[in-house]
Amino acid sequence: MKMLKDPEHQVAGHMAKDGRLGPLVDGEGRFFKPFQSNGRGENEAKFYESFSSNKNVPDHIRGYFPVYHGTQVVEASNGSGKLPHIVLDDVVYGYSNPSGMDVKIGSRTWYPGVSELYFNQCLKNDRETTSVSLGFRHAGFKIFDHQESRFWIVEYKVVHGYKVDDARLVLRKFVSSNSLADSIPDCAFASEVYGGSNGILAQLLELKAWFETQTLYHFSSCSVYMFYENESILMKGGGGARAQVKLVDFTHVLDGNGVVDHNFLGGLSSFIKFIQDILES
Amino acid sequence: MKMLKDPEHQVAGHMAKDGRLGPLVDGEGRFFKPFQSNGRGENEAKFYESFSSNKNVPDHIRGYFPVYHGTQVVEASNGSGKLPHIVLDDVVYGYSNPSGMDVKIGSRTWYPGVSELYFNQCLKNDRETTSVSLGFRHAGFKIFDHQESRFWIVEYKVVHGYKVDDARLVLRKFVSSNSLADSIPDCAFASEVYGGSNGILAQLLELKAWFETQTLYHFSSCSVYMFYENESILMKGGGGARAQVKLVDFTHVLDGNGVVDHNFLGGLSSFIKFIQDILES
Repeated sequence: MKMLKDPEHQVAGHMAKDGRLGPLVDGEGRFFKPFQSNGRGENEAKFYESFSSNKNVPDHIRGYFPVYHGTQVVEASNGSGKLPHIVLDDVVYGYSNPSGMDVKIGSRTWYPGVSELYFNQCLKNDRETTSVSLGFRHAGFKIFDHQESRFWIVEYKVVHGYKVDDARLVLRKFVSSNSLADSIPDCAFASEVYGGSNGILAQLLELKAWFETQTLYHFSSCSVYMFYENESILMKGGGGARAQVKLVDFTHVLDGNGVVDHNFLGGLSSFIKFIQDILES
Repeated sequence: MKMLKDPEHQVAGHMAKDGRLGPLVDGEGRFFKPFQSNGRGENEAKFYESFSSNKNVPDHIRGYFPVYHGTQVVEASNGSGKLPHIVLDDVVYGYSNPSGMDVKIGSRTWYPGVSELYFNQCLKNDRETTSVSLGFRHAGFKIFDHQESRFWIVEYKVVHGYKVDDARLVLRKFVSSNSLADSIPDCAFASEVYGGSNGILAQLLELKAWFETQTLYHFSSCSVYMFYENESILMKGGGGARAQVKLVDFTHVLDGNGVVDHNFLGGLSSFIKFIQDILES
């Protein structure tokens, strides 16, 4: 196995920077996510095991999830020794210059049965962010600004403080060439990234159709991660933006027990409307 | 105006029985709902005023709301003197033997901006009932049992304590001829009431399609009221079950501010899945 290194294109979550514990990549298409504490790593591995072998998941839906390659004990990013990691496809492998955005779906991140401590933490975060008002909240992003030819990244604390208008604005900036400017986002790449038969909107609608009937899992605190290649936009004819949607973060997935995941479905529907509004404007 | 009297077919909410304050009917097709306290009556009248004159509401959606006839000061049901009432079409007027069910939609009945007192009350109710787990909760019903030829009514306290399995079961009993029996509900009227091009499911799906794009209102603490005529089932060829869905209770409707009502939409989608499951089984 090649030497593991910090991922270049991560946009949210626990990052392996400055000697902290975070995910690693092998540079050959695999992503190593260290087990999160308090049983969350075990939960996530359990979900991937269940999902990978679940014959009730349609093939076209499977493509919206990172491919799972089991777990592996490797040297942790923070030098604390060997730790178990979940091994996944590195979804941005092969992208040289991707813009990416992580959006946590659902107006509620707690769920029946959690401890009062966790319940109160989640409820506080849901009320302080746009989760309650919009049914989703931004968790992080990395947007390549074409005018200044560099990435625009915003601190987690700032993203956490986003209000409704900020949430709306950054979805426009995500597909604009002038994301770093104070001027109105030009949405230059909206139709290429959000639109079209293979674009983000079409993918989100396909996912939503599944969520309207699937009662296998409830995806608490799960994120939509969307990304696209800027290189092909810079060099026209470079194969397209290859815009993709993946669901990520399954540390709090529950058994659906025959009930639709109304919390995720409602939030996803709200998010979809925001993307539709951008395409229509 | 004719003498006002207690409505015969109300299934939930504040009832005008035993000298308490509740709605009245005139026996000629009008329903009089007394203004609820703490500004809720004013809010509801304001909603009806706004909705009635809102040109952005499609005609086919308007039919899912009771027709509004303004407000009127009439003698209250509890003999406390004259009080303002909201005047509506009595939706079950012309039904001689209706079964009816009131289902409060949404996993959350509180919303941003409410007092901490109201927030805590709502949150407690949402967690204690099926609102959080199912995205809806039963608020009351009145089901005509064909075997015993009488209505099955359950106390509010009991309905409030319903768990997931109870919620599922009563949706089957609603369309069964043996609802009072302990045996398995026969779902004898499922296809006639829930199914078909004019049935409950078709109406719910039409409503849902509107909720996927409408950003005019957020319907907090609002109910789906569904009802049908038993008389026509008893006397075959009597004109059909005339199953209908109406949205009721608008004391907590908010401006949508360009955002989809993800709380209502998620809950409605979950409720729809329960009806679909009954039709498929």
